[in-house]
Amino acid sequence: TLAQPDFALPDEYGSLNALQWATIFESLLNSQRLALWPHIPSELSSSILSEMREDARGHFLSELPQANIEEAVFSGTNAEVVEILDALPQKTVVRLVNKLAPGTQSQIETSLSYSDEQVGRYADQEVYTIASTALVRDVLREVKSAEHLHEGNSYVVTDASAKYLGEVNINDLLNASAKQSIAELVHLPETQIDAEQSLLDASNLVRGSQKAALPVVDGHGRFIGQFSIQDALSVFQEYYESQMAHLGQVSDEDLFAPVVLSAKRRAIWLGINLLTAFLASFVIGIFDAVLVEVVALAVLMPIVASMGGITGSQTLTLSIRGLATGQLNSVNYQYLRRKEFLVAALNGAFWAVMVGILAYFWFSDVFVSVILASALLINMLVASLSGMAVPKVLDKLGVDPAIAGSVILTTITDVVGFFVFLGSATIIFLR
Amino acid sequence: TLAQPDFALPDEYGSLNALQWATIFESLLNSQRLALWPHIPSELSSSILSEMREDARGHFLSELPQANIEEAVFSGTNAEVVEILDALPQKTVVRLVNKLAPGTQSQIETSLSYSDEQVGRYADQEVYTIASTALVRDVLREVKSAEHLHEGNSYVVTDASAKYLGEVNINDLLNASAKQSIAELVHLPETQIDAEQSLLDASNLVRGSQKAALPVVDGHGRFIGQFSIQDALSVFQEYYESQMAHLGQVSDEDLFAPVVLSAKRRAIWLGINLLTAFLASFVIGIFDAVLVEVVALAVLMPIVASMGGITGSQTLTLSIRGLATGQLNSVNYQYLRRKEFLVAALNGAFWAVMVGILAYFWFSDVFVSVILASALLINMLVASLSGMAVPKVLDKLGVDPAIAGSVILTTITDVVGFFVFLGSATIIFLR
Repeated sequence: TLAQPDFALPDEYGSLNALQWATIFESLLNSQRLALWPHIPSELSSSILSEMREDARGHFLSELPQANIEEAVFSGTNAEVVEILDALPQKTVVRLVNKLAPGTQSQIETSLSYSDEQVGRYADQEVYTIASTALVRDVLREVKSAEHLHEGNSYVVTDASAKYLGEVNINDLLNASAKQSIAELVHLPETQIDAEQSLLDASNLVRGSQKAALPVVDGHGRFIGQFSIQDALSVFQEYYESQMAHLGQVSDEDLFAPVVLSAKRRAIWLGINLLTAFLASFVIGIFDAVLVEVVALAVLMPIVASMGGITGSQTLTLSIRGLATGQLNSVNYQYLRRKEFLVAALNGAFWAVMVGILAYFWFSDVFVSVILASALLINMLVASLSGMAVPKVLDKLGVDPAIAGSVILTTITDVVGFFVFLGSATIIFLR
Repeated sequence: TLAQPDFALPDEYGSLNALQWATIFESLLNSQRLALWPHIPSELSSSILSEMREDARGHFLSELPQANIEEAVFSGTNAEVVEILDALPQKTVVRLVNKLAPGTQSQIETSLSYSDEQVGRYADQEVYTIASTALVRDVLREVKSAEHLHEGNSYVVTDASAKYLGEVNINDLLNASAKQSIAELVHLPETQIDAEQSLLDASNLVRGSQKAALPVVDGHGRFIGQFSIQDALSVFQEYYESQMAHLGQVSDEDLFAPVVLSAKRRAIWLGINLLTAFLASFVIGIFDAVLVEVVALAVLMPIVASMGGITGSQTLTLSIRGLATGQLNSVNYQYLRRKEFLVAALNGAFWAVMVGILAYFWFSDVFVSVILASALLINMLVASLSGMAVPKVLDKLGVDPAIAGSVILTTITDVVGFFVFLGSATIIFLR
C-alpha cells in the first residue's frame, strides 16, 4: 500500500527517529521510497538520507527529484550534506554547492577537500566554539540562552584564526569568576584527531577516549570540527557489514538494487569462482585414469576438499579478525601459526580415522580408506598453514584479506585436496 | 620478552587507555598476560578486564591469582564488575560478592538479577542522581564541586523511593532561580529503556536517540542505571564479530585459547560438515555407474556444486543481513525472493553458456556440455530460492540463521548439484 501515491501514515510514524526512518526506506523499493518521501517530517530529511546505508542512499537519490534533494541539502549539517553529496554525480555536486549560502559553502568545501577515507570529510563543523578572548560571563550567558542543547560537558575554544586551543569544562566555567578570560580556563584534551586520519583509526580513538566526541584538527592546527562516538558507531557498522558481505562474496548493500545491476556485481564473484572451480577440475582431469579404475575415489573426493575448506576457513576467519583488531602482530604470528597447525593436526588425525573407518564400511577397500585418511589429514594441515599465510600476504600487498582471502583459500584446499587424494591413488592403484 | 618476570615497560605505555591495554592483553599468551599484569596502572585494572573480549577475559581470569581478581573487582564500577564476574565460576562469584561493601553488593545483586542478554545487567548504576526535592542552588553547588566530570548535559532525577522521574538539563539549571525545586524543572526524555530489553534492542535505542546515554528503568518504574552509546558500541562489536565467526564456522574468540579447547570447539563444526559431505558422497555413489562410463562427469561435477554454493551464499548473506537489520520483513520478502531468483536466472543463463562452451572445447561431447549447463542453471536457481528460504525457516525456529545457515545451504547446493548433474547424465548415457 505504500506504493500508492495517496495514503495516510499511521500515527505511530510520528515518533520515529531518523535512524528508524532510514531502516524503513532501506526496506522499500525505489518506487515506494519515492511515494513515502513526502510524508516524512521535513526537518529529518537530511538526517534520514545520511543514516541510510550508502548503496540504498545512492539508488534512492538517483531517482529522487532535484527539488527534494535540494531541500534536504539546504537543511542538513555539513556532515549530513557531505554524505548526500557523496552519492550524487560530480556535476550535480558542483551545482548544489554553488547554490549554498557562502558560510555553508566554505564548510562543505573544507569537508570535500578530504577524501572519503579521511575523518576530516565527515567531522561535524557545526560545533559551538568559544573565542579565547571571551569572558566567562559572556559564555555563560550564551550557554544559558542556547536554543539547541549542547551535547557533552565541555566547549571548544579557538583563537581569532580558528586555531584549536583546547576545551573548557562546564565545571570550570561555573567555578570561575564572571570576568575571567576563557584563555585562563582552556586546557588541551588528552587526544586529538588529525583530519587526515582514516575513519577507522579516528573511530578507535573516540571509542578509547570514553568521551562523547573528539576535536578534529588539520595540519596547521586549525579546528575542523568534531568526530563523535555516534559517528564512530556508524563507521564500525559499515566496516563490519562490508566485511560480512565480502565473506559471503557479494557486494550489494541495497536489497532492492535493480536486478541487472545486482546480477552484474555478483557475476564478477561467480566468474572468479568459476576459474578456481575449473582449476580444481583440471587437477581431477590429470588423474582421470584412476577414477575409471576405482569409482569410489570419485564418490569420496568431495569429502577431502570440503573438510580442508572448513579447516582453512576457521583459521582464516581468526587471522583476518586478528589482523583487523590489531591482536595479531609480527611477534605472536609464529605462535598462532604453530597453534593453528596443532589444532588442525589434532582434528585432522581424529577425523581422518573416523572418515577412514566409515569409508571402509562403505567400500571395503583398505587402500581407499588409507589414501582418503592421509589425504584428509594432509589437506587439513595445508589448510591451516594457508589460513595463516594468505591473509598475511594479502595484507602486505595492500589487499583487504576479507575480500579475496576465502576464494584463494578454497582454491588451495580444492587443488591440494584433489591432487593429494587422486595423486596418491594413482601411485597405489596404477603402479 | 614480555614473558620474562622482570622487565620495564617503555614510557609510551604510560599513555595507553583501557581499550588499548585490552587489545594488548588479547594479543598475548596467558603466561605473558600474567607477567604483564603487575605493570598496568592499577586504577585501570577493572576497565581493562571488562574491555577484553569475553573469551580472552575468561581464559585470562582462569589463571589470574585470586588476589589480583579481587583488587580489580573492588575498584570497578558495577557494570565492569559484572563483566568480570560473568567470566568466573559461580562459587567464586558468591564469595566475591559477599566480600563487597554493602552498597556495592546491593548494586551488583540488582545487576545479577537480570540475565546476560538483558540490558539491566550491564546498566551503569554509578550515575549522579538528583532528588526531586532538592533545590537548584544545592544541585549547582554539587555540580561545581564534583570531583569527576559528569559526561553529558543532563542529570537524572529520582524520588525518595528511587523511582525515575526524568532528567534536568544543565541549561535549565543555569536559567532557574536558586531556590526553585528540581521537581519543577524535571522532564521525561523521549526514550527510556526497559531493564528487561535485550542488549541489542537497547543499543539500537541509544543509537537512534542521538543522546550520550539513556535511562534504564525496571518494571516498577525504578531507576536502574544508564546505558551509554559506548556500551552500545561494545554490544554491536560483539554482535558483528560473533556473526562473522559463525560465517567462518568457528566459535573461538581468544586467539590464544588452549590448543585442546580450540580443537574441541572446532571439531563440532567439522563433524557437522562431515555429515553433509558424506550426504553429497552418498548422492554421487547412487550414480557411480555413469561415472565409470563417462569420466568427464567426475572431472566437471565440482563446478556445478561450487557455482551453486556461491550463488546461494550471496543470497543467504543478503537475507541474513536483511533479517538482522530489520530491512527484510514479511511485506517485501516475496519481492526480494523474486528479485534474487531473477538475478540467479540471469547469471545462471550466462555462466551456463560459458561453462558449456568451455567444457565442449575440453571434452568435445555435446551431451556432457548440455547436461553440465542445465545442471548449473538449475542448481543456481535452487540455490537462490534456498538462500531466501533457509534463513526464514531458521528464524521462525528461533535459530540464528548466521550459525546454521551456510552449512544447510551448502548441503542443499551439493546434493541438488550432484543429483541433477549425475542423474540427468544417467538418463542420457545409460538409457
